[in-house]
Amino acid sequence: MKALLLVAHGSRRAASNDEIRALTARLRDIDAEFDRVDCAFLELAEPSIPEGIRSAIHAGARQLVVLPYFLSAGRHVSEDIPGEVNSARSEYPDTEIMLAPYLGASAEIGRLLVMQASEAIGS
Amino acid sequence: MKALLLVAHGSRRAASNDEIRALTARLRDIDAEFDRVDCAFLELAEPSIPEGIRSAIHAGARQLVVLPYFLSAGRHVSEDIPGEVNSARSEYPDTEIMLAPYLGASAEIGRLLVMQASEAIGS
Repeated sequence: MKALLLVAHGSRRAASNDEIRALTARLRDIDAEFDRVDCAFLELAEPSIPEGIRSAIHAGARQLVVLPYFLSAGRHVSEDIPGEVNSARSEYPDTEIMLAPYLGASAEIGRLLVMQASEAIGS
Repeated sequence: MKALLLVAHGSRRAASNDEIRALTARLRDIDAEFDRVDCAFLELAEPSIPEGIRSAIHAGARQLVVLPYFLSAGRHVSEDIPGEVNSARSEYPDTEIMLAPYLGASAEIGRLLVMQASEAIGS
């Protein structure tokens, strides 16, 4: 079973965390490949990253992709999230846990921004 | 002349701000519609939003799209950036200044995330 865990920073604003949960629900609809899609938060909201990983694995995930929903490669992306992933790899050696590049690293972001800007100009 | 101003939060980490500048350079390459593409920062980095808007208008922009490079609709997206845009509209009544939806509002984000996760799993 393949699972995807979208990892966001987490916010004191409940609405921001709910935005992530709504996006996660949309991913479930879009997706054809992953049997399970969940979100987790680095801080300030629940579930935490270890909790999110544990839930997916307890539900039967044998391949788990952790995808950081971040725009820039700060400490959270370069250290904190990889640290959590490495801990989980030690704890669950039978599960293949992969860390995808953070969203801002996507080569597609540029095209998406230009599309969004063009729509704003009504062309 | 049409101009695009990508607005990011700004960071104390120079590398994060440089990531935005590199993305802005990629937008110039991708884009066919905008004659000018620049970035500006809400705080912690230069140029500021008013400076970015002024530069584009002084360079001849008659239509300017401001696009918030943010993932969630917090105070920055819902209040601070619209406030800056409204001030600029008062100051430059001859320029059409449009505020595009923030990146996280894009309907395409979900598809992009699923694509990125699938690449991580090697399928």
